[in-house]
Amino acid sequence: MVYLGIDLGGTKIAAGVTDQDGAILGRASAATLARRSYQEVVKDMAACALSALADSGHPLEEVAAIGIGIPGIAENVHGTVFFCTNLGWENIPLREELRKHIDKPIFIDNDATVAALAESMAGVSRGASSSVFLTLGTGVGGGIIFDGKPWTGAHGVASELGHLTLELDGIPCTCGKDGCLERYCSATALIRMGREAVRLHPDSLILQRAGSEDRIDGKTIIDCAREGDPAAMKVFDRYTRYLALAINTIVSFIDPEMIVLGGGISMAGQFLLDAVREKIPRYLMFKAMPYGRVELAVLGNGAGIIGAAMLGRVLKEGESL
Amino acid sequence: MVYLGIDLGGTKIAAGVTDQDGAILGRASAATLARRSYQEVVKDMAACALSALADSGHPLEEVAAIGIGIPGIAENVHGTVFFCTNLGWENIPLREELRKHIDKPIFIDNDATVAALAESMAGVSRGASSSVFLTLGTGVGGGIIFDGKPWTGAHGVASELGHLTLELDGIPCTCGKDGCLERYCSATALIRMGREAVRLHPDSLILQRAGSEDRIDGKTIIDCAREGDPAAMKVFDRYTRYLALAINTIVSFIDPEMIVLGGGISMAGQFLLDAVREKIPRYLMFKAMPYGRVELAVLGNGAGIIGAAMLGRVLKEGESL
Repeated sequence: MVYLGIDLGGTKIAAGVTDQDGAILGRASAATLARRSYQEVVKDMAACALSALADSGHPLEEVAAIGIGIPGIAENVHGTVFFCTNLGWENIPLREELRKHIDKPIFIDNDATVAALAESMAGVSRGASSSVFLTLGTGVGGGIIFDGKPWTGAHGVASELGHLTLELDGIPCTCGKDGCLERYCSATALIRMGREAVRLHPDSLILQRAGSEDRIDGKTIIDCAREGDPAAMKVFDRYTRYLALAINTIVSFIDPEMIVLGGGISMAGQFLLDAVREKIPRYLMFKAMPYGRVELAVLGNGAGIIGAAMLGRVLKEGESL
Repeated sequence: MVYLGIDLGGTKIAAGVTDQDGAILGRASAATLARRSYQEVVKDMAACALSALADSGHPLEEVAAIGIGIPGIAENVHGTVFFCTNLGWENIPLREELRKHIDKPIFIDNDATVAALAESMAGVSRGASSSVFLTLGTGVGGGIIFDGKPWTGAHGVASELGHLTLELDGIPCTCGKDGCLERYCSATALIRMGREAVRLHPDSLILQRAGSEDRIDGKTIIDCAREGDPAAMKVFDRYTRYLALAINTIVSFIDPEMIVLGGGISMAGQFLLDAVREKIPRYLMFKAMPYGRVELAVLGNGAGIIGAAMLGRVLKEGESL
């Protein structure tokens, strides 16, 4: 049997076929064109999935299930998407609609949870009994895997790690609260700190490289830190300290076997990993006790397809998220 | 079959016998006298357990297992206590030592986790598929129950909810970090806020009732808030706001079916519950989504014995915590 995975993004639909271990056998993609009706988007998701299947050379009869990763919140009992802000979706009967096109078991989950599952089935956390995935992108997303299955809570609102409070009455967040972890650990936060730094240190390499304050991005700041620019090093040190505190929260709360860092910032690779690993022990409660290994995600963009496909392998239809 | 539970505290050993649903059938207690050798303490734990058994009228053959709740960290593969600060224990072979006196399967866990299990087997969270227990005492402890079993993580250091960061570089904590949740949500924190308040408002009812600043306790502050004293109301409002933020962290991280408040502060009852429940929605990420019910613990001091006994029912020996 093979598994169909659909990675639904705000701009692109990516579909893929995998074997039971998450190895990609075929791929296809299409534009999301999010402003259309959901029926039109779902029709293209189905077409895209069938193209990926054709690309893999497997017939529809061999497809065990379809999994979908969405940038939002869903539940698997009825296959409803509660919210999907990028697409303007609210209470969309995604399973029911997709089944009009392809009649297979259909599973839906949040994209960060899907990436977490991908890494635990075919990536860096394969074999770990429990893992937490942290996406460090525009925002901060989280995914929790217990015993090989995604944990999305009793009401489907778990693993929103970006919205844990890290600072009482801290920096206002887009969610309406203040001091959310996302405001300190996202790429957006790193860029904000970089901009603040160049205002105080206009001679910084960051500004030379970026050209202007509004063109500063995460990669520039990290590259400059790597090259030893003092202002960039300070920003990077502050950012990785926040990340170490976030990881302490993960360790002290659920103590997973592994913590996986993904998303754009994780492209900084070993430089990021070394800085974070060095700081974590300072913030742990039990200094002498072992704790989860921190590693970088390895599947990159493929994680969305692989994890979505693997939803169909590890979940049973009608099972609550 | 019946289950033996031992609640090991810094000053008292309490033992009890329960049926398979956690109903207490017999009890006994003894002084811990923590300064003795661990062998002497364990000998008294065994004697106390056998007294409770005699009190229950059941013979030793009917005992399925013995569970122990400790104020520290342990693992169940070898039955070793890593730390137990109140007793000065470090790397104590508790299972091995107790088995010299009573040859039964023996399980050990942290006292907050044990209380969480008690409530989920015989208390307010009975029947919930997942729950998180928060002890609001001198410190803040936590216990997590998934599918009827305690979750203590891949390395036994999970559910240390008191040491999640709630304020970056905030109030220094006894653990060596700054801004831990415990510094805002414990009885100790409430008392600190009460003392700060009476310095600014010496006319407060809090000071009249307590007599002097150093005799202010949590109950006095809460009683005064209930009676409408403005300074006490402000302190209580601030305290319950911190608690609502802590509960948001629990909801956003693992979204349990229930959140149970225990420990000394929970004795404030409905007055506390109403204040906390009213504030939670302000701090949630998804305002329109359902989230876990917040309730008060109902088992009181019995939770220690019941939860310890129930460890023997839900865990298998050699199973990692």
